[in-house]
Amino acid sequence: MSKSNTYNVAVVGATGAVGQKMLETLEDRNFPINQLKLLSSSRSAGLKTTFKGKEYVVEEATPESFTDIDIALFSAGGSVSKKLAPEAVKKGAVVIDNTSAYRMAEDVPLVVPEVNESDIKNHKGIIANPNCSTIQMVAALEPIRKSLGINRVIVSTYQAVSGAGNEANDELREQSQAFLNGEELEANILPAKGDEKHYPIAFNALPQIDVFQDNGYTFEEMKMINETKKIMHMPKLSVAATCVRLPIFTSHAESVYIEVEQDDVSVEQIQSLLAEAPGIVLQDDPATQTYPTPLSSAEKKDVFVGRIRKDLDEDRGFHLWVVSDNLLKGAAWNSVQIAERIVANQWL
Amino acid sequence: MSKSNTYNVAVVGATGAVGQKMLETLEDRNFPINQLKLLSSSRSAGLKTTFKGKEYVVEEATPESFTDIDIALFSAGGSVSKKLAPEAVKKGAVVIDNTSAYRMAEDVPLVVPEVNESDIKNHKGIIANPNCSTIQMVAALEPIRKSLGINRVIVSTYQAVSGAGNEANDELREQSQAFLNGEELEANILPAKGDEKHYPIAFNALPQIDVFQDNGYTFEEMKMINETKKIMHMPKLSVAATCVRLPIFTSHAESVYIEVEQDDVSVEQIQSLLAEAPGIVLQDDPATQTYPTPLSSAEKKDVFVGRIRKDLDEDRGFHLWVVSDNLLKGAAWNSVQIAERIVANQWL
Repeated sequence: MSKSNTYNVAVVGATGAVGQKMLETLEDRNFPINQLKLLSSSRSAGLKTTFKGKEYVVEEATPESFTDIDIALFSAGGSVSKKLAPEAVKKGAVVIDNTSAYRMAEDVPLVVPEVNESDIKNHKGIIANPNCSTIQMVAALEPIRKSLGINRVIVSTYQAVSGAGNEANDELREQSQAFLNGEELEANILPAKGDEKHYPIAFNALPQIDVFQDNGYTFEEMKMINETKKIMHMPKLSVAATCVRLPIFTSHAESVYIEVEQDDVSVEQIQSLLAEAPGIVLQDDPATQTYPTPLSSAEKKDVFVGRIRKDLDEDRGFHLWVVSDNLLKGAAWNSVQIAERIVANQWL
Repeated sequence: MSKSNTYNVAVVGATGAVGQKMLETLEDRNFPINQLKLLSSSRSAGLKTTFKGKEYVVEEATPESFTDIDIALFSAGGSVSKKLAPEAVKKGAVVIDNTSAYRMAEDVPLVVPEVNESDIKNHKGIIANPNCSTIQMVAALEPIRKSLGINRVIVSTYQAVSGAGNEANDELREQSQAFLNGEELEANILPAKGDEKHYPIAFNALPQIDVFQDNGYTFEEMKMINETKKIMHMPKLSVAATCVRLPIFTSHAESVYIEVEQDDVSVEQIQSLLAEAPGIVLQDDPATQTYPTPLSSAEKKDVFVGRIRKDLDEDRGFHLWVVSDNLLKGAAWNSVQIAERIVANQWL
């Protein structure tokens, strides 16, 4: 399949917001690629994109596309993954799937390498990449859980539009210019592409990401709740989420309340746990107005944490502000990171 | 002082974002004004503004400005209120102060009429108007507290720039256009005008409103915590706040988690309490994607509530999404409402 520790890699959804970031990240990390195949739905087939200075024509993904592929990174929507990921596995590829299609399937590991890297080795062909807002939160919570225990999480999110793809970026850009010109705002994509109603996002806040479930929570909220429990191996963890889309292009922010299991924990203890944790950058100094923001975190691979405060009433309660680039750690970088761990450990 | 149930009214800070809304609201409500005096700091004195079609020249506020004034609405910053509110009281005026100068003073009522109207009658000349983000939250919590009790509140805010005045509006507008043009963003006002560092707000989220306190919380967060306890007469209420400024011109939104005192409360119970409450509009139907947003709530006097969900782990826990125009219910309308209650009850 591959020669001298290089791998045949397919990127499915190569022209999308996440697909483009996957290519950038593979290039940036100098991932050991033998042959690269760029795939997409029929709609985008024929488009061209470059990798390491070389031009590639994007081909329509079919079951045959995966012959001789070692690793397939999927980010072309849940329906494409449902149809083609099993075909890729049949052809011998390991699939790293960035959609929600397989995340909660019992035999599919759901992985954030800083949290549960070793789950990868149990894969049966598919490894799922978690939801963007979940990844950055569990990356920040795990170092705290390991030392102090955590039994409760309440999160309110501040999410960028790029999580809804390039069309949502265009919509924010066009609506913002229309607003500044004093024109009417036209909404066709957000809050959720397939949903009945659309509302303007420019200079607004939409308390709906993805569609509503029967219990009154949105699918995005349920993803955060269920995926957090699965990744952290804590089925009994109390998790609540309110997910809000904002007029931000890149990086999700989260206001996270946690309760630890130990008494008398100090802010300094939590700060030093996070300062030493892999993939986490502590930016927390009120005296110098130091804290992460979406703009300061964009185009970076790390998860940034600041505004760590002890609750004023609950001794075990702490508040954190967690920010990360939703297309990188939230999607492309976490997927490539999984691919790197697979080849480093030979978990193919 | 006044003839036949009309009153001499002064508006201090008449040219500011809130002052202008106070004039609009007094006009809209047809407040019984005999003589209107528009005042400001020396910087804005001489500017002209209109009320009921008549042009007024704004005068510099001095102690003498308040001779014969019955009601003085202050919104020209804390230092102006500290200097001139006692002078206005000495001249016989009742002051309704929209700054933070007197809010926590023991002998000053802090009032949201839907919550604690009767506190007004204990005033000794000054009545304080609470912080914008506090007002809309307590208005939504009070009907729930009255029936079901509340012992815990955790809020994350999504706040508009207009809470920081017209200069912050201009900054958001200029930065947004610069961003869309691909130019550098210049930041001079936000997150807090007097603070050392300034960060861009356009397409960003700033987890700092007002300056930091020694305990790591911002002053805005401490205002929400302390004012909520005072207005609701609940010194032991557990309240936590994380306040975030966003690229929104008008209306604050809040993701509020509460714990009620009764067991087995349903979402429907909370919905019907809010639907019947004064000043509250329930907009909560996931099936039709019905929920309030900043844009849909702007220029309206009410507090809008939606996304009411029961916590999935804590039987007494509920999540709410509360939105209101920060310049109206959050400032001008609440002040004028206090003035209306004062004249209706003859609490002058």
